[in-house]
Amino acid sequence: MKIDKNHISDHNNGHLDKHRQEFEFLEKRLRDTDHPASKILDNLSKLQIAIPSWALGSGGTRFGRFPIGGQPRNLEEKMADIGLLHQLSQMASRISLHIPWDIPEDVEKIKATADEYGLAFDAMNSNTFQDQPGQAHSYKHGSLSHTDPAVRRQAINHNKEVIDYGVQLGSKSMTVWLADGSNHPGQSNLSKALKRTGESLAEIYAHMPADWSLFIEYKPFEPYFYSTVIPDWGTSYLLASDTGDRAYSLVDLGHHLPNTNIEQIVATLISRGKLGGFHFNDSKFADDDITVGSIKPYQLFLIFMEITQGMAANPHGNPDIAYMIDASHNLKDPLADLLESLESIGLTYIKAALVDYESLEQAREENDISRCSAILQDAYQTDVRPILREFRRRQGGAIDPVAFYREQNVREELVKERGSDSSASGL
Amino acid sequence: MKIDKNHISDHNNGHLDKHRQEFEFLEKRLRDTDHPASKILDNLSKLQIAIPSWALGSGGTRFGRFPIGGQPRNLEEKMADIGLLHQLSQMASRISLHIPWDIPEDVEKIKATADEYGLAFDAMNSNTFQDQPGQAHSYKHGSLSHTDPAVRRQAINHNKEVIDYGVQLGSKSMTVWLADGSNHPGQSNLSKALKRTGESLAEIYAHMPADWSLFIEYKPFEPYFYSTVIPDWGTSYLLASDTGDRAYSLVDLGHHLPNTNIEQIVATLISRGKLGGFHFNDSKFADDDITVGSIKPYQLFLIFMEITQGMAANPHGNPDIAYMIDASHNLKDPLADLLESLESIGLTYIKAALVDYESLEQAREENDISRCSAILQDAYQTDVRPILREFRRRQGGAIDPVAFYREQNVREELVKERGSDSSASGL
Amino acid sequence: MKIDKNHISDHNNGHLDKHRQEFEFLEKRLRDTDHPASKILDNLSKLQIAIPSWALGSGGTRFGRFPIGGQPRNLEEKMADIGLLHQLSQMASRISLHIPWDIPEDVEKIKATADEYGLAFDAMNSNTFQDQPGQAHSYKHGSLSHTDPAVRRQAINHNKEVIDYGVQLGSKSMTVWLADGSNHPGQSNLSKALKRTGESLAEIYAHMPADWSLFIEYKPFEPYFYSTVIPDWGTSYLLASDTGDRAYSLVDLGHHLPNTNIEQIVATLISRGKLGGFHFNDSKFADDDITVGSIKPYQLFLIFMEITQGMAANPHGNPDIAYMIDASHNLKDPLADLLESLESIGLTYIKAALVDYESLEQAREENDISRCSAILQDAYQTDVRPILREFRRRQGGAIDPVAFYREQNVREELVKERGSDSSASGL
Amino acid sequence: MKIDKNHISDHNNGHLDKHRQEFEFLEKRLRDTDHPASKILDNLSKLQIAIPSWALGSGGTRFGRFPIGGQPRNLEEKMADIGLLHQLSQMASRISLHIPWDIPEDVEKIKATADEYGLAFDAMNSNTFQDQPGQAHSYKHGSLSHTDPAVRRQAINHNKEVIDYGVQLGSKSMTVWLADGSNHPGQSNLSKALKRTGESLAEIYAHMPADWSLFIEYKPFEPYFYSTVIPDWGTSYLLASDTGDRAYSLVDLGHHLPNTNIEQIVATLISRGKLGGFHFNDSKFADDDITVGSIKPYQLFLIFMEITQGMAANPHGNPDIAYMIDASHNLKDPLADLLESLESIGLTYIKAALVDYESLEQAREENDISRCSAILQDAYQTDVRPILREFRRRQGGAIDPVAFYREQNVREELVKERGSDSSASGL
Repeated sequence: MKIDKNHISDHNNGHLDKHRQEFEFLEKRLRDTDHPASKILDNLSKLQIAIPSWALGSGGTRFGRFPIGGQPRNLEEKMADIGLLHQLSQMASRISLHIPWDIPEDVEKIKATADEYGLAFDAMNSNTFQDQPGQAHSYKHGSLSHTDPAVRRQAINHNKEVIDYGVQLGSKSMTVWLADGSNHPGQSNLSKALKRTGESLAEIYAHMPADWSLFIEYKPFEPYFYSTVIPDWGTSYLLASDTGDRAYSLVDLGHHLPNTNIEQIVATLISRGKLGGFHFNDSKFADDDITVGSIKPYQLFLIFMEITQGMAANPHGNPDIAYMIDASHNLKDPLADLLESLESIGLTYIKAALVDYESLEQAREENDISRCSAILQDAYQTDVRPILREFRRRQGGAIDPVAFYREQNVREELVKERGSDSSASGL
Repeated sequence: MKIDKNHISDHNNGHLDKHRQEFEFLEKRLRDTDHPASKILDNLSKLQIAIPSWALGSGGTRFGRFPIGGQPRNLEEKMADIGLLHQLSQMASRISLHIPWDIPEDVEKIKATADEYGLAFDAMNSNTFQDQPGQAHSYKHGSLSHTDPAVRRQAINHNKEVIDYGVQLGSKSMTVWLADGSNHPGQSNLSKALKRTGESLAEIYAHMPADWSLFIEYKPFEPYFYSTVIPDWGTSYLLASDTGDRAYSLVDLGHHLPNTNIEQIVATLISRGKLGGFHFNDSKFADDDITVGSIKPYQLFLIFMEITQGMAANPHGNPDIAYMIDASHNLKDPLADLLESLESIGLTYIKAALVDYESLEQAREENDISRCSAILQDAYQTDVRPILREFRRRQGGAIDPVAFYREQNVREELVKERGSDSSASGL
Repeated sequence: MKIDKNHISDHNNGHLDKHRQEFEFLEKRLRDTDHPASKILDNLSKLQIAIPSWALGSGGTRFGRFPIGGQPRNLEEKMADIGLLHQLSQMASRISLHIPWDIPEDVEKIKATADEYGLAFDAMNSNTFQDQPGQAHSYKHGSLSHTDPAVRRQAINHNKEVIDYGVQLGSKSMTVWLADGSNHPGQSNLSKALKRTGESLAEIYAHMPADWSLFIEYKPFEPYFYSTVIPDWGTSYLLASDTGDRAYSLVDLGHHLPNTNIEQIVATLISRGKLGGFHFNDSKFADDDITVGSIKPYQLFLIFMEITQGMAANPHGNPDIAYMIDASHNLKDPLADLLESLESIGLTYIKAALVDYESLEQAREENDISRCSAILQDAYQTDVRPILREFRRRQGGAIDPVAFYREQNVREELVKERGSDSSASGL
Repeated sequence: MKIDKNHISDHNNGHLDKHRQEFEFLEKRLRDTDHPASKILDNLSKLQIAIPSWALGSGGTRFGRFPIGGQPRNLEEKMADIGLLHQLSQMASRISLHIPWDIPEDVEKIKATADEYGLAFDAMNSNTFQDQPGQAHSYKHGSLSHTDPAVRRQAINHNKEVIDYGVQLGSKSMTVWLADGSNHPGQSNLSKALKRTGESLAEIYAHMPADWSLFIEYKPFEPYFYSTVIPDWGTSYLLASDTGDRAYSLVDLGHHLPNTNIEQIVATLISRGKLGGFHFNDSKFADDDITVGSIKPYQLFLIFMEITQGMAANPHGNPDIAYMIDASHNLKDPLADLLESLESIGLTYIKAALVDYESLEQAREENDISRCSAILQDAYQTDVRPILREFRRRQGGAIDPVAFYREQNVREELVKERGSDSSASGL
């Protein structure tokens, strides 16, 4: 489903007077700072968030799923959905593919479709946490870390195949989320499993073209409940360091133990040049995978502060971070929820850009804590919505994407087009 | 599959010499205490653990499932499996049914089958966390707490129907695990949802025969990730108190926030006469549902201590607690895992029985903490396996049920009988 | 130290132009809603936060303390400090006394001093978690829950004495934070300790005048590390219900296990008419007692939403909630930090007032989750600082209290007056 | 206070008959395994646990302290206390000093005293988390990570001085627990603080003799509550790797976020040759510092399994691990509590030695999880107290140290000798 540009213009015109007043008021206020609206608007266009191909359908839990109608039935329809998100938000020009859920059967056609929607291919994702029909060996007891070399071989080959698909599509990176782990104390020789994993990753790395990067994700638990082979950033960092210069850690917001200071992990990894990827979602309890910023928006602000400052200093050449939304849409319409997520990311990014880092550094040097707090609050309390709206307006997006999506009855249209019992490949 | 008694005798005879030595050594040591082996053996026969009908198949996570062969294909086969567990362990003479996964189509036949295996029907379980085909209203946004009275009506009627099935089978209690909750802050009016739930429970309670009990389970999260309507024991207690004298709280070990002192909850509920049911499993991170006692065996010991002391004092007439194993067998053979769980429960129960409560109370009165610790350690460090083996031997069970199960290649037999791709109803 | 009103006027005049522009812009935007600025400004004057007498000095941890200069040396100086906070913020007109740290030797003089600063006496606080010199019995092994009736008697009498002081001062409530608990499994008979506590509370309650309220605080751990007698809201609620109509639960933000949904506890307690007191602070790990809103400002917003909606519905006559800041100022200047806290409370209160509850309820009824989220975001993203500044300006307070405090070198003045090694009674 | 050897003999003789029976029964059972009692008894003598000089007095919390009588008043008395612990347990021949709490004024005399009690000097400990009287710069805002080079210089010099004391006493290692951190988001430039810390550690390392080791401790929070400079094993590992070959991580059981899999961290660090030190205690909530094994004894067993297997394989030459008890004795008699801790460590060490690692490895290779569980349970369920008693008996220690300590009224004797209001330097 393609949105007629005129509809967007109509929507924007309806909001224009109010928006203009608000934007001008804020623009004036920021004019004489070192972060004027113009600069932020420039930077915003560099903030592009990948949407994974498996996020367009309804998610669920082990207790079940309540599917929505109009889910995309194939890769082309998924790309259409992401195209729509990008058209409205101007922040979602990248797609992250999962193999085998979204094998590009006809590469040229897929590339043409991507061009049509203005999309590029972000990191590729492999899957060794499920068994596929006809698969020779089961991943029940692991994949890259398995005790049996034949299973490891199968898993390595699958990863290589995923890279090959990515090369054809123009992707430049590979994300390995290794679910391997154990449910029962004593079940696994933890050191050997880690060693075998390192060896497997080395083979995958060697298969990548020289301009590719490898992102190594970590997660403390689920789907395994006693140990995972890569439970924390430290283990991911060890593996990335062992594997090679273009191997990096990937931080997913939901993959941490209670109370973890995630922003500090981000700071440390960037300071070592090892933060490759970042997955957005939010959680109150575990890997809840709900809308980013819906539970701990201030934590997200603190993370963006570390990214902003860290990438400005960047002592070890950390590459541009590959951002992706990795949430599960169990109750909300996936497209509406993704638009909400993009809104949340955009607003928080802007708030982090409003921080007066120079004064902050000075206050830190002087251990003037009250002043540090005041500087953060001054940025965080600001209502930055006018800037994000202005960004979208200028780029041809919608001033209020969620409202537009609802006004246009997009979901109803998709149900008509795809049926109410369509089902998306994925979880 | 029925085990020939002679095979069990053969097994036991093979272990008898070693066992006899160990049992006699321990028996002698306990002879002059207030908890001689004879007394513990007597009490053990009263410890019967229900097995839920959905626990005989492989479990999984939202990321997938790795099914085992030989899973029971219907209620009769599930009862056969539980019959086997009971035959070997002598501790599993109760079955807990889930509706609609295990609707007893032919009640008389099911009752005869139960008699054949020596099984009784424990608490009935309803399901309003999933939609069934052909269902008029969806539970996506709740059931007993739903904003729409029509959905509440459907959910209440389903619970009543479950009670009706239970009455026919001779069950005497109903467990409500209400998954209802919300994923997003602001999504739900928390107070109203609680109020509606209380009203729904009152209707279900009114439908129960006068000798039935209602167990109200609590859980802080999953499948909802921002709030659940009954998140903690306090809310469950409030609802049980409002609902009636025969309404009780149900404690599931995995349904607590990190670091919760569960034994204290058990103590408080018993002291108020409100602990009705108890679900066994273990967890390291969330509701991991792994083998009870495999992660925190000492916590289980402390819980059994509170139960033992609490039920001995019992100031408000707490009823006998309905025990059930509620674990998920994602990697291990479900039957082997359940035998392990029964072993763990039996051993821990015996250790709690070894505590010298009279001396403990005296030491507590005197605030002699070192003495309290010594009394607990003296019980916990004891190797009580000989008593549990002797219990099973005397009752006709197997001295070592897990070993016997493996020696007899039970799983292989079940695969032959039921096929390698059989699938059990349930999660 | 008293601030000259002219200095405040000067400060305000310096900010007036900018403030007026911002306020008018916001006022206009809110004019046609059901929460115009005028209404919020009216309500704000009812939001008065108590400052505890022990919060004016530097706090510390078991590892030590880094004291600041100019700490108040006696109750009069503490009242002067609170008077200053109120003068600047117009939100801190209440003082909460701790006995024996702040025994009012000369009641009439203390009352006159309070009048001078415009302060009233909020809830009284007792202390049975420390031994005082010359005390007959130690509280090492408990106070209201102690096994020895003589110790309980001493603790009860102390609480009665605290009430007596409060009566003289015009206080109307008593807060019991009972630290009692145990460090070692088995050390305490948990049920008996709870029963004894209930009996002790009944005696304290009986001693209160008929127009007084009793607030029962809960806390899961610290200073005891295995169990506390009142670990959670459920236990607090049980005790309050047993004790009497004017006994209530008290929620302290830092007294919860990781990931607790505190706003839901608030909603449940209000819906039962049992939320008496509320203590502000923030925490990332445990009872960290840092500046409220500095870690989880959105959680605070959600709590204020529950309070706002709950008190509007108020089915069981919940009394006005007694608010207090209960933070520890380990690094920041206590007065600056308290001003920050008052700012944070004020801003969040206003944001919660901006929520369109009528539309929210409608969206909830329709399970329109995206709409619910949008309504919350619309309030939370608004920059409400102009309203809080306007409130203070109109009441005679400072437009920017923290800035004013720093401009006036208040701390330096206090050091001159009180010395650099003054020490405040308290922790 | 020195214990007369005859008293120990008398005690042992009183327990001998019962002990002999139990030991022989167990010895016979283990005879034909690959871990006979004789081998375990040999290994036990290599398990020596350091006692820190600050652990002999009563501990407390920020809310206060309840001191016991008879606390050691100086280093000599502390050594006497540790001498007693070692005499009874035969497992505590090492003392870990804290500077400035226990500066050895007369080195030769201290060394002679150590010889007298059979004690050696384990890792030295510095203190930059408190200000000492007369100190030029405050550590309020950090020490090795401070923004001001003068403060860093002072902290580095203090650490060098601690090393110098250690060299004189024959110690061979230095432990740095760096409390540095921040309480407020934004207060600290996290990357710069880490960088400065690395530079400071390099200077300290360079000052150590060539046969010394540096242990770098990590802790997620307390005394700082937003961030610590070395929050987790990953950061500690990074710093140790940067610093040098003889720099290692130190694991303290209480210094982890909720639910951390500590045994996996131990496995990973050993497999990299980087686990230098290990601190024993236990906790339910935070850094509770209670008796090791009193809350999670099975976790301790799993950790000792990883140590046993890891040190047997030892691919990167991990050094012998420096063990220390780091607990706080808030309620129990410190000496009785330390004897309990030593008992717990000894028993768990033996249980880990009973694991049939060869069979376990085979079962792991075959992914036979039930068999893995059975192997662990077989070791853990064994009552190994007879072996530990026999070890002590043979070495001249007491069969039951805690009982002996109580029978001999040691505390009462110490009170007579040292007074009831003696106070130990330390926390």
